[in-house]
Amino acid sequence: MLTFEDFQPGHFATLGPRHVTREEIISFAAEYDPQPMHLDEEAGRLSLAGGLSGSGWHMCALAMRMQVDGIIGRADSLSGLGVDEVKWLAPLRPGDDLTLEVHVDEARVSKSRPETGIVRVRAEMFNASGEKLMTIVSNGLFRRRAPAQA
Amino acid sequence: MLTFEDFQPGHFATLGPRHVTREEIISFAAEYDPQPMHLDEEAGRLSLAGGLSGSGWHMCALAMRMQVDGIIGRADSLSGLGVDEVKWLAPLRPGDDLTLEVHVDEARVSKSRPETGIVRVRAEMFNASGEKLMTIVSNGLFRRRAPAQA
Repeated sequence: MLTFEDFQPGHFATLGPRHVTREEIISFAAEYDPQPMHLDEEAGRLSLAGGLSGSGWHMCALAMRMQVDGIIGRADSLSGLGVDEVKWLAPLRPGDDLTLEVHVDEARVSKSRPETGIVRVRAEMFNASGEKLMTIVSNGLFRRRAPAQA
Repeated sequence: MLTFEDFQPGHFATLGPRHVTREEIISFAAEYDPQPMHLDEEAGRLSLAGGLSGSGWHMCALAMRMQVDGIIGRADSLSGLGVDEVKWLAPLRPGDDLTLEVHVDEARVSKSRPETGIVRVRAEMFNASGEKLMTIVSNGLFRRRAPAQA
Protein backbone atom coordinates (compact mmCIF):
# COMPACT_ATOMS: atom_id res chain seq x y z
CA MET A 1 0.00 0.00 0.00
CA LEU A 2 1.28 3.47 -0.89
CA THR A 3 1.32 5.92 2.01
CA PHE A 4 2.00 9.64 2.28
CA GLU A 5 5.76 9.02 2.29
CA ASP A 6 5.60 7.52 -1.22
CA PHE A 7 4.44 10.80 -2.74
CA GLN A 8 7.60 12.84 -3.26
CA PRO A 9 7.56 15.97 -5.43
CA GLY A 10 8.27 15.19 -9.07
CA HIS A 11 6.88 12.99 -11.84
CA PHE A 12 4.91 10.16 -10.26
CA ALA A 13 3.32 8.02 -12.97
CA THR A 14 2.13 7.77 -16.56
CA LEU A 15 -1.37 6.28 -16.66
CA GLY A 16 -3.35 4.85 -19.56
CA PRO A 17 -3.92 4.70 -22.43
CA ARG A 18 -7.69 4.83 -21.87
CA HIS A 19 -9.81 4.52 -25.01
CA VAL A 20 -12.96 6.67 -25.09
CA THR A 21 -15.89 5.86 -27.37
CA ARG A 22 -18.53 8.09 -28.94
CA GLU A 23 -21.15 6.16 -26.97
CA GLU A 24 -19.46 6.96 -23.65
CA ILE A 25 -19.18 10.64 -24.53
CA ILE A 26 -22.85 10.87 -25.40
CA SER A 27 -23.94 8.76 -22.43
CA PHE A 28 -22.08 10.94 -19.90
CA ALA A 29 -23.38 14.11 -21.54
CA ALA A 30 -26.98 12.88 -21.62
CA GLU A 31 -26.82 12.32 -17.87
CA TYR A 32 -24.72 15.23 -16.62
CA ASP A 33 -24.03 17.83 -19.31
CA PRO A 34 -26.73 17.70 -22.01
CA GLN A 35 -25.45 20.56 -24.14
CA PRO A 36 -25.98 20.03 -27.89
CA MET A 37 -22.25 20.00 -28.78
CA HIS A 38 -21.73 16.99 -26.48
CA LEU A 39 -24.71 15.04 -27.88
CA ASP A 40 -24.93 15.67 -31.58
CA GLU A 41 -22.39 15.71 -34.43
CA GLU A 42 -23.99 18.62 -36.28
CA ALA A 43 -24.30 20.78 -33.16
CA GLY A 44 -20.69 19.92 -32.39
CA ARG A 45 -19.61 20.98 -35.87
CA LEU A 46 -21.23 24.38 -35.32
CA SER A 47 -19.66 24.81 -31.87
CA LEU A 48 -16.27 26.29 -30.96
CA ALA A 49 -14.89 22.75 -30.77
CA GLY A 50 -15.75 22.17 -34.45
CA GLY A 51 -17.06 18.65 -33.89
CA LEU A 52 -18.65 16.38 -31.29
CA SER A 53 -16.75 16.92 -28.04
CA GLY A 54 -16.93 15.35 -24.61
CA SER A 55 -17.99 17.28 -21.52
CA GLY A 56 -15.13 18.81 -19.54
CA TRP A 57 -16.58 17.10 -16.48
CA HIS A 58 -16.39 13.79 -18.32
CA MET A 59 -12.67 14.45 -18.78
CA CYS A 60 -12.39 15.06 -15.02
CA ALA A 61 -14.28 11.84 -14.26
CA LEU A 62 -12.07 9.85 -16.66
CA ALA A 63 -8.94 11.33 -15.05
CA MET A 64 -10.26 10.26 -11.65
CA ARG A 65 -10.90 6.72 -12.87
CA MET A 66 -7.40 6.49 -14.32
CA GLN A 67 -5.94 7.67 -11.00
CA VAL A 68 -8.05 5.25 -8.96
CA ASP A 69 -6.97 2.36 -11.20
CA GLY A 70 -3.32 3.39 -11.27
CA ILE A 71 -2.60 4.98 -7.90
CA ILE A 72 -5.40 5.55 -5.39
CA GLY A 73 -6.63 1.96 -5.46
CA ARG A 74 -3.28 0.82 -4.06
CA ALA A 75 -2.81 3.75 -1.68
CA ASP A 76 -3.92 4.38 1.88
CA SER A 77 -6.07 7.27 0.67
CA LEU A 78 -8.48 8.83 3.15
CA SER A 79 -10.27 11.47 1.14
CA GLY A 80 -10.15 13.93 -1.70
CA LEU A 81 -10.11 17.46 -0.33
CA GLY A 82 -10.67 19.60 -3.36
CA VAL A 83 -9.37 20.98 -6.60
CA ASP A 84 -7.12 24.02 -7.03
CA GLU A 85 -7.54 24.30 -10.78
CA VAL A 86 -8.96 22.64 -13.87
CA LYS A 87 -8.05 23.94 -17.31
CA TRP A 88 -9.87 22.59 -20.34
CA LEU A 89 -7.39 23.20 -23.15
CA ALA A 90 -8.61 21.13 -26.09
CA PRO A 91 -11.69 18.99 -26.77
CA LEU A 92 -12.14 15.33 -25.87
CA ARG A 93 -13.07 13.48 -29.09
CA PRO A 94 -14.71 10.14 -29.84
CA GLY A 95 -12.01 7.49 -30.24
CA ASP A 96 -9.39 9.34 -28.19
CA ASP A 97 -6.79 7.26 -26.37
CA LEU A 98 -6.02 9.22 -23.23
CA THR A 99 -2.80 9.27 -21.26
CA LEU A 100 -2.45 10.94 -17.88
CA GLU A 101 0.88 12.29 -16.64
CA VAL A 102 0.72 12.56 -12.87
CA HIS A 103 3.10 14.83 -10.97
CA VAL A 104 3.33 15.45 -7.23
CA ASP A 105 3.54 19.22 -6.75
CA GLU A 106 3.76 19.21 -2.96
CA ALA A 107 3.43 16.83 -0.01
CA ARG A 108 3.00 18.16 3.53
CA VAL A 109 2.02 16.69 6.88
CA SER A 110 -1.45 17.76 8.00
CA LYS A 111 -1.39 20.15 10.97
CA SER A 112 -4.83 19.17 12.24
CA ARG A 113 -4.33 15.40 11.69
CA PRO A 114 -0.60 14.68 12.10
CA GLU A 115 -1.10 10.99 11.30
CA THR A 116 -1.97 12.07 7.76
CA GLY A 117 -0.47 14.13 4.95
CA ILE A 118 -1.86 16.26 2.14
CA VAL A 119 -0.57 15.58 -1.37
CA ARG A 120 -1.13 18.09 -4.17
CA VAL A 121 -1.14 16.37 -7.54
CA ARG A 122 -1.00 17.87 -11.03
CA ALA A 123 -2.51 15.57 -13.65
CA GLU A 124 -2.10 16.39 -17.34
CA MET A 125 -4.28 14.61 -19.88
CA PHE A 126 -3.02 14.02 -23.41
CA ASN A 127 -4.55 12.43 -26.49
CA ALA A 128 -2.63 10.00 -28.72
CA SER A 129 -1.25 12.91 -30.81
CA GLY A 130 0.36 14.38 -27.71
CA GLU A 131 -2.05 17.30 -27.55
CA LYS A 132 -2.70 18.42 -23.96
CA LEU A 133 -6.45 18.34 -23.31
CA MET A 134 -6.64 19.24 -19.63
CA THR A 135 -4.74 19.91 -16.45
CA ILE A 136 -6.16 19.25 -12.97
CA VAL A 137 -4.45 20.24 -9.75
CA SER A 138 -6.09 18.52 -6.77
CA ASN A 139 -5.43 17.72 -3.13
CA GLY A 140 -5.80 14.37 -1.38
CA LEU A 141 -5.38 13.16 2.18
CA PHE A 142 -3.21 10.05 2.72
CA ARG A 143 -2.26 8.15 5.86
CA ARG A 144 1.36 8.37 7.03
CA ARG A 145 3.35 5.19 7.46
CA ALA A 146 4.65 6.06 10.92
CA PRO A 147 2.23 7.76 13.32
CA ALA A 148 3.47 11.11 14.64
CA GLN A 149 5.17 10.75 18.02
CA ALA A 150 4.46 14.21 19.41
CA MET B 1 -31.69 33.42 -24.63
CA LEU B 2 -29.43 34.71 -21.88
CA THR B 3 -26.31 36.47 -23.13
CA PHE B 4 -23.21 37.82 -21.40
CA GLU B 5 -25.05 41.01 -20.39
CA ASP B 6 -27.52 39.02 -18.27
CA PHE B 7 -24.76 37.83 -15.92
CA GLN B 8 -24.28 40.69 -13.49
CA PRO B 9 -22.27 40.20 -10.29
CA GLY B 10 -24.43 39.00 -7.41
CA HIS B 11 -26.85 36.16 -6.65
CA PHE B 12 -28.10 34.71 -9.92
CA ALA B 13 -30.34 31.70 -9.23
CA THR B 14 -31.37 28.98 -6.81
CA LEU B 15 -31.49 25.62 -8.60
CA GLY B 16 -33.05 22.32 -7.56
CA PRO B 17 -33.94 20.47 -5.49
CA ARG B 18 -32.36 17.46 -7.19
CA HIS B 19 -32.96 14.13 -5.47
CA VAL B 20 -30.02 11.69 -5.49
CA THR B 21 -30.50 7.97 -5.00
CA ARG B 22 -28.17 5.32 -3.58
CA GLU B 23 -28.26 3.61 -6.99
CA GLU B 24 -27.01 6.74 -8.78
CA ILE B 25 -24.20 7.20 -6.26
CA ILE B 26 -23.01 3.63 -6.71
CA SER B 27 -23.45 3.69 -10.48
CA PHE B 28 -21.33 6.84 -10.91
CA ALA B 29 -18.67 5.48 -8.56
CA ALA B 30 -18.52 2.09 -10.30
CA GLU B 31 -17.77 3.87 -13.57
CA TYR B 32 -15.54 6.77 -12.54
CA ASP B 33 -14.44 6.57 -8.90
CA PRO B 34 -14.53 2.95 -7.68
CA GLN B 35 -13.21 3.57 -4.18
CA PRO B 36 -14.79 1.29 -1.53
CA MET B 37 -16.41 4.12 0.46
CA HIS B 38 -18.44 5.13 -2.61
CA LEU B 39 -19.57 1.56 -3.40
CA ASP B 40 -20.23 -0.24 -0.15
CA GLU B 41 -22.04 0.71 3.08
CA GLU B 42 -19.60 -1.06 5.39
CA ALA B 43 -16.53 0.45 3.71
CA GLY B 44 -18.29 3.81 3.93
CA ARG B 45 -18.91 3.35 7.65
CA LEU B 46 -15.19 2.73 8.18
CA SER B 47 -14.19 5.77 6.08
CA LEU B 48 -13.75 9.39 7.19
CA ALA B 49 -17.27 10.09 5.88
CA GLY B 50 -18.73 7.55 8.36
CA GLY B 51 -21.16 6.07 5.83
CA LEU B 52 -21.68 5.52 2.11
CA SER B 53 -20.77 8.76 0.34
CA GLY B 54 -20.89 9.92 -3.26
CA SER B 55 -17.78 10.74 -5.26
CA GLY B 56 -16.75 14.38 -5.19
CA TRP B 57 -16.68 14.24 -8.99
CA HIS B 58 -20.29 13.02 -8.94
CA MET B 59 -21.16 16.16 -6.98
CA CYS B 60 -19.44 18.22 -9.70
CA ALA B 61 -21.32 16.38 -12.45
CA LEU B 62 -24.65 16.88 -10.64
CA ALA B 63 -23.91 20.59 -10.20
CA MET B 64 -23.21 20.82 -13.93
CA ARG B 65 -26.50 19.13 -14.79
CA MET B 66 -28.41 21.48 -12.49
CA GLN B 67 -26.74 24.47 -14.18
CA VAL B 68 -27.42 23.16 -17.68
CA ASP B 69 -31.09 22.61 -16.81
CA GLY B 70 -31.47 25.92 -15.02
CA ILE B 71 -29.17 28.36 -16.79
CA ILE B 72 -26.85 27.17 -19.56
CA GLY B 73 -29.60 25.45 -21.56
CA ARG B 74 -31.26 28.85 -22.09
CA ALA B 75 -28.03 30.83 -22.51
CA ASP B 76 -25.87 31.61 -25.52
CA SER B 77 -23.04 29.66 -23.95
CA LEU B 78 -19.99 28.94 -26.09
CA SER B 79 -17.75 26.89 -23.84
CA GLY B 80 -16.63 26.11 -20.34
CA LEU B 81 -13.09 27.35 -19.84
CA GLY B 82 -12.05 25.83 -16.57
CA VAL B 83 -12.41 25.72 -12.83
CA ASP B 84 -10.69 28.01 -10.31
CA GLU B 85 -11.60 25.96 -7.26
CA VAL B 86 -13.62 23.03 -5.98
CA LYS B 87 -13.99 22.45 -2.24
CA TRP B 88 -15.58 19.24 -1.03
CA LEU B 89 -16.86 20.23 2.41
CA ALA B 90 -19.27 17.47 3.45
CA PRO B 91 -20.28 14.10 1.97
CA LEU B 92 -23.01 13.51 -0.60
CA ARG B 93 -25.41 10.93 0.88
CA PRO B 94 -28.01 8.59 -0.62
CA GLY B 95 -31.40 10.31 -0.57
CA ASP B 96 -29.99 13.85 -0.49
CA ASP B 97 -32.08 16.60 -2.05
CA LEU B 98 -29.57 19.05 -3.47
CA THR B 99 -29.96 22.77 -3.95
CA LEU B 100 -27.47 24.91 -5.84
CA GLU B 101 -27.02 28.61 -5.11
CA VAL B 102 -25.44 30.24 -8.13
CA HIS B 103 -23.64 33.58 -7.81
CA VAL B 104 -21.87 35.59 -10.50
CA ASP B 105 -18.51 36.64 -9.09
CA GLU B 106 -17.27 38.55 -12.11
CA ALA B 107 -18.23 39.22 -15.74
CA ARG B 108 -15.72 40.69 -18.16
CA VAL B 109 -15.49 41.14 -21.91
CA SER B 110 -12.97 38.81 -23.55
CA LYS B 111 -9.89 40.63 -24.85
CA SER B 112 -9.11 38.04 -27.51
CA ARG B 113 -12.76 37.59 -28.64
CA PRO B 114 -14.52 40.91 -28.01
CA GLU B 115 -17.84 39.50 -29.25
CA THR B 116 -17.82 37.28 -26.14
CA GLY B 117 -17.53 37.64 -22.39
CA ILE B 118 -16.16 35.50 -19.58
CA VAL B 119 -18.41 34.89 -16.58
CA ARG B 120 -16.97 33.56 -13.33
CA VAL B 121 -19.65 31.71 -11.37
CA ARG B 122 -19.56 30.49 -7.78
CA ALA B 123 -21.95 27.57 -7.20
CA GLU B 124 -22.64 26.37 -3.67
CA MET B 125 -24.32 23.00 -3.16
CA PHE B 126 -26.48 22.38 -0.08
CA ASN B 127 -28.40 19.37 1.19
CA ALA B 128 -31.95 19.61 2.56
CA SER B 129 -30.61 20.34 6.07
CA GLY B 130 -28.82 23.41 4.76
CA GLU B 131 -25.38 21.86 5.14
CA LYS B 132 -22.96 23.15 2.50
CA LEU B 133 -21.50 20.16 0.62
CA MET B 134 -19.39 21.84 -2.03
CA THR B 135 -18.37 25.07 -3.67
CA ILE B 136 -17.26 25.32 -7.31
CA VAL B 137 -15.86 28.45 -8.93
CA SER B 138 -15.78 28.10 -12.69
CA ASN B 139 -15.45 30.20 -15.83
CA GLY B 140 -17.63 30.11 -18.91
CA LEU B 141 -17.62 31.93 -22.24
CA PHE B 142 -20.90 33.56 -23.36
CA ARG B 143 -21.80 35.50 -26.48
CA ARG B 144 -22.47 39.24 -26.08
CA ARG B 145 -25.80 40.65 -27.23
CA ALA B 146 -24.28 43.51 -29.21
CA PRO B 147 -21.14 42.85 -31.22
CA ALA B 148 -18.22 45.13 -30.32
CA GLN B 149 -18.03 48.12 -32.64
CA ALA B 150 -14.31 48.78 -32.35
